[in-house]
Amino acid sequence: MKAEIVSVGTELLLGQIVDTNAAYLGRALSEVGIGVYRRTTVGDNPERLRAALTEALDAADVVFTIGGLGPTMDDITRDVLSEVTGVPLALDDGIADRLRAFFVSRGLSVLDSQLRQAYVPVRGRALPNPNGTAPGLLFDVPPKLAIALPGPPGEFIPILDNEVVPILRNRTGGATIRSRVIRVCGLGEAAVEDRVKDLMLGLNPTVAPYAKTGEVHLRVTARGSSAEEAEGLAAPLVEEIGRRLGPHVYAFDDEPLEAAVVRLLRDRASTVAVAESCTGGLLAGRITDVPGSSEVFLGGIVTYSNGAKADLLGVPPTMLEAHGAVSREVAEAMAVGVRRRLGSDLGVGITGIAGPGGGTADKPVGLVWIAVSRAAGVVSERNVYIGIRRDVRTKATQTALTMLRDELMAQTMPEPASRATKP
Amino acid sequence: MKAEIVSVGTELLLGQIVDTNAAYLGRALSEVGIGVYRRTTVGDNPERLRAALTEALDAADVVFTIGGLGPTMDDITRDVLSEVTGVPLALDDGIADRLRAFFVSRGLSVLDSQLRQAYVPVRGRALPNPNGTAPGLLFDVPPKLAIALPGPPGEFIPILDNEVVPILRNRTGGATIRSRVIRVCGLGEAAVEDRVKDLMLGLNPTVAPYAKTGEVHLRVTARGSSAEEAEGLAAPLVEEIGRRLGPHVYAFDDEPLEAAVVRLLRDRASTVAVAESCTGGLLAGRITDVPGSSEVFLGGIVTYSNGAKADLLGVPPTMLEAHGAVSREVAEAMAVGVRRRLGSDLGVGITGIAGPGGGTADKPVGLVWIAVSRAAGVVSERNVYIGIRRDVRTKATQTALTMLRDELMAQTMPEPASRATKP
Repeated sequence: MKAEIVSVGTELLLGQIVDTNAAYLGRALSEVGIGVYRRTTVGDNPERLRAALTEALDAADVVFTIGGLGPTMDDITRDVLSEVTGVPLALDDGIADRLRAFFVSRGLSVLDSQLRQAYVPVRGRALPNPNGTAPGLLFDVPPKLAIALPGPPGEFIPILDNEVVPILRNRTGGATIRSRVIRVCGLGEAAVEDRVKDLMLGLNPTVAPYAKTGEVHLRVTARGSSAEEAEGLAAPLVEEIGRRLGPHVYAFDDEPLEAAVVRLLRDRASTVAVAESCTGGLLAGRITDVPGSSEVFLGGIVTYSNGAKADLLGVPPTMLEAHGAVSREVAEAMAVGVRRRLGSDLGVGITGIAGPGGGTADKPVGLVWIAVSRAAGVVSERNVYIGIRRDVRTKATQTALTMLRDELMAQTMPEPASRATKP
Repeated sequence: MKAEIVSVGTELLLGQIVDTNAAYLGRALSEVGIGVYRRTTVGDNPERLRAALTEALDAADVVFTIGGLGPTMDDITRDVLSEVTGVPLALDDGIADRLRAFFVSRGLSVLDSQLRQAYVPVRGRALPNPNGTAPGLLFDVPPKLAIALPGPPGEFIPILDNEVVPILRNRTGGATIRSRVIRVCGLGEAAVEDRVKDLMLGLNPTVAPYAKTGEVHLRVTARGSSAEEAEGLAAPLVEEIGRRLGPHVYAFDDEPLEAAVVRLLRDRASTVAVAESCTGGLLAGRITDVPGSSEVFLGGIVTYSNGAKADLLGVPPTMLEAHGAVSREVAEAMAVGVRRRLGSDLGVGITGIAGPGGGTADKPVGLVWIAVSRAAGVVSERNVYIGIRRDVRTKATQTALTMLRDELMAQTMPEPASRATKP
């Protein structure tokens, strides 16, 4: 079963709002085994909406529209959809009465324009909208369906979840898509693909890589006549990929890297504290974004000045003078200092130059030293990240989490060979 | 001049990512007076991409693609665009050399797949990408243009702003749309609209409100035959809105609240330090996101445990016991403590319950106490935010920045009447 989505609204084309509804609909459809082949966005323009809907109804089994169902003049979806499907509209007295009651209860009278929202397709039906005035509309165009949903997410999502998904499940008779996401850190996109590219040729399941900031996701998608069948098809491939990528796989599905690190900390009954310079609290922010992180995260210290590094973390002023604030020595002293100061098992130190200013030939913008300390010793890494200030900061937190994870993994596995360890 | 946008990526159709780039591009195009007539999203599928591009090139003067320029097998945009425009690709030695140097500098060898990114149209050119490996591509198809941009926003946005917009400005020869954004804090959307609703009826300029987390933006958009004319139309309206909203207007256009606060700190030659519990470093993270914040931001301390609050911030253990960690007293003691510990002019303390666990009838999830301390005294606010953990944390940092701004404004203006101040 093929779907197309037509989003309606000049504000979408102008970029004044981001189309989160279309993404939500894409996820919902893939869960019931319906593939989306194309998504088209047009403005509040009858001619262009007509063209988009005609094309979509021609190509797909079910066509969704999002937006343009309200009472104002530029809400044109209802009328154009009636025209394109050839299904006339008729006033629904029940909906009209509810609209009148709604406005009267607010001390208002109903405008004629508001009553446009009470017109429903004569072949098809209204999809109740408990959170707004415009119901969703289902146009029955055998063997196809056109489904119109209102644009405000607070109305769109409940109608989709409660009304539309059951209708679709009924139609697809259980056929379904299941996706697993394999989350990989410490390996680039090309290197990941290099290890699994022979697995990327299949059609069911499919395997697709997505490069994220400092990590790579591999999505395995299987289609089956039931959820069990789809899961059964995906499972061996997920396992094989896991085998090939080994410890670089940090989690599956929706668990972000910080949550995987917090999970490992809990598993190992370890605690962590962090000292940040150029990342300015972002690492602490990511760790504390994980519910329950308070059990393993003892605290963070953001030291932007040399004085604070000396005073709060015990970094010797002579070291700051001899090596500069952005140096292996200072990163390691910060990691050791925050661990001791807060009495944690692990300590992280980050010092670098996020830019745009502050770089030199010797220490360019993007240079970041990151250290992880535990009782047995300290490891550190030098990176030069490319990108704007925000990218440098994000990538540095990503590396820090990856290193922290490596240290936690090393508690039961051999030390990674590629890094210098000193006592 | 008409534009169409084709976004490429199965992950967009599946709803795994939201297409923020397309919205950004829509805004950029409207600012140079180019109307977007349709946006199409297709998966990583050559046939469907070919169909979408053929249609788009037929209908529009300039066609943009977003995504699919990377090194992997499912990055198909470059080849399909070459095919559809009839403009062949050729290896650019300069780009290939830079790619090799980039990988060699990281101790890696270049995979063949990486070198695909060095192919550029023989009629047209590469658009330099300082933040990634795949350059943007301009295909010259007189009288039309096709412009391909990479999908990661950190690469997409700089190429668009620095390379593409100047090219487009050159082509449109002056006819233009100009937008100003008036950024408002400490006032809800309905209250903002109430003060300016009579100004929202015009067609040129138009005024539209957008509710953001903890703030409201008003966008004034004017159309003119030149930038000067459009700006001249917008200016009196921007001024009038500024007059009506007074000190609630914290900035214009792209300056976020944290940047406005850093600007005020510099203007007042003041410094700040922050102590965070439930926001876990996010406030420090936002302040240090502003380039040059190191001049005014002395540091941050993230204290998740009572021990750390006592040890690092000097919050008396008896106070923690008597009032609990989430209380006015502790928020104020944190604000005072971090100010003294780091020797700053201003100190901020935040303590609350971000959830999902940890709430009680007395102290529900979402309860956050925020205090701002300076030599003359301390002010504090109690809020109960609605939403998931992430919302509570974001809203709390927004309130803290708003309070910090109020304190800085009060250095030259009367104290806000609505808050208790104690010596």
